[in-house]
Amino acid sequence: MSSQKEQSIKILETIPSFRSWRQQFIKQDKQVAFVPTMGSLHEGHLNLVKQASEHCPIVVVSIFVNPAQFGPNEDLDKYPRTLSHDLELLRSLNCVDSVFLPKVKDIYPSGIPLEIEKQKGTFIEVKGISHQLEGTTRPLFFRGVSTVVAKLFNIVQPNHTFFGQKDAQQCAVIRALISDLHFPIEMHVGATKREHNGLAMSSRNQYLTPEMRNYATALYNALTTIKNGLGKGERNREILLSKGYEIIEEATKTVKEKNLGFELKLDYLSVADPTTLEELQEIEEGKGAIISGALFVGTTRIIDNLLFNCTL
Amino acid sequence: MSSQKEQSIKILETIPSFRSWRQQFIKQDKQVAFVPTMGSLHEGHLNLVKQASEHCPIVVVSIFVNPAQFGPNEDLDKYPRTLSHDLELLRSLNCVDSVFLPKVKDIYPSGIPLEIEKQKGTFIEVKGISHQLEGTTRPLFFRGVSTVVAKLFNIVQPNHTFFGQKDAQQCAVIRALISDLHFPIEMHVGATKREHNGLAMSSRNQYLTPEMRNYATALYNALTTIKNGLGKGERNREILLSKGYEIIEEATKTVKEKNLGFELKLDYLSVADPTTLEELQEIEEGKGAIISGALFVGTTRIIDNLLFNCTL
Repeated sequence: MSSQKEQSIKILETIPSFRSWRQQFIKQDKQVAFVPTMGSLHEGHLNLVKQASEHCPIVVVSIFVNPAQFGPNEDLDKYPRTLSHDLELLRSLNCVDSVFLPKVKDIYPSGIPLEIEKQKGTFIEVKGISHQLEGTTRPLFFRGVSTVVAKLFNIVQPNHTFFGQKDAQQCAVIRALISDLHFPIEMHVGATKREHNGLAMSSRNQYLTPEMRNYATALYNALTTIKNGLGKGERNREILLSKGYEIIEEATKTVKEKNLGFELKLDYLSVADPTTLEELQEIEEGKGAIISGALFVGTTRIIDNLLFNCTL
Repeated sequence: MSSQKEQSIKILETIPSFRSWRQQFIKQDKQVAFVPTMGSLHEGHLNLVKQASEHCPIVVVSIFVNPAQFGPNEDLDKYPRTLSHDLELLRSLNCVDSVFLPKVKDIYPSGIPLEIEKQKGTFIEVKGISHQLEGTTRPLFFRGVSTVVAKLFNIVQPNHTFFGQKDAQQCAVIRALISDLHFPIEMHVGATKREHNGLAMSSRNQYLTPEMRNYATALYNALTTIKNGLGKGERNREILLSKGYEIIEEATKTVKEKNLGFELKLDYLSVADPTTLEELQEIEEGKGAIISGALFVGTTRIIDNLLFNCTL
């Protein structure tokens, strides 16, 4: 049985066609909710879409794999693209009004070579919270994210927008982008969806075999242990982190001993200030923290985070 | 005799009060024209405002001296602020609906120290056309301009915006900003207004004595000579520029000989591609050029430009 929205989900592939479709809701004074995605949708995305539909009568999802947030040696080419399955999933929600599917040349009229020296045109940086954590290994990542999100905001002109907590630093960057550039948009953060074993859902999980997914939970377990330590009143950074490192080390060792054909390699564990994203040396009583980390599972890099006494 | 608009010119000093005033015209589907200024208004600004009123039923002018486009050693503190006179001038036009007068702390919620290392928050750069010409001596100038204009666009949400040709590179940067970030805004460029002697009108002309203004025309004269050379078919860069340099040298020499208590010092003369803003070595037949320059008159730096077979 199909609802009206399922039947009438509007696929728009150009900026002018999107703008003209959008126009009617300005005249009707209907609020628009926007969920920007890179496709390869999973429960986490679908949850954001459902949340969006609870806030606004009109729901827009964009699917756009954004070259500007990939480094020259990253996985832009192999990033999973599953459009027909994505559309099927969105139709099944019965709450999406339009899916915006722009082309790279339309979003980046000045082109977008991956090498930064060759890049021309307009780029946005959120200084102070883009260089640490994910920004350490991916120095241009948040510049790419900020730039594409601003472009999409100006095309979609949403009243509300929805991002997933799994990308905690991205949430902080987009919140600052909206506030600093005065976009008339309210931001919402959706909870991280997890597999039954705790692994945070991510499009990149598709790169992992079932066995890899099993050992990948070491990251979630490490973060949980740190959060539990905080919950029990431990405030010393080194003690908190050491419990996390232990869990990762143990999993790394097991994978090695069992000779499973891949390696686990920790990128970082972090306990950071929720506002400045700077590492906390002592966690002051009553102050919150973002507990986050990144782990290589074979060649796939996964990230995850938990919040302690704070929101994003 | 005062018209309705003169009586009802709305002065709005906060972002929320501006937004709520703006809202009515979205509902009424009335187009809004926007002229962003740093105040200290002259004929050039007033001309843009008149142009704006010919395009849209609603005209908004902002007055905001933008710290982010001043270097640590530039004239932010002494930049002329003449608010009551500005408002008088705008009232006399009988076509301005609202003047937006935001505060620095509202436009820059993350603060805006002049030293770049201390800056936090969101900044916008238009790569490829911001580093040359004016960007050579003022490396962060267009970053400051791009950032504030994007902020103002998101607050004012205009349908049309108006910039003066005198700041030719700024026009190119804002045009790219609008196009690259997909602002739903149409840009218009107003002709440079000049004093009777040819000197381009500028708020910084207030720093000049009548005698300085007289010798400052050397820049306009140099640019005119280069343009005339192009008009007569000369296509060699060196020959074209040499005529311009001669005029500046002669004026410089006269000022020195007459011992007038100030100096003329050329910063640059340029013949550049209207799109890339790169210096042209040979000016191809049928191709346009921006002829521009900057001249120190005492400690005041003035700029000017003429267009040959092109628009901005």
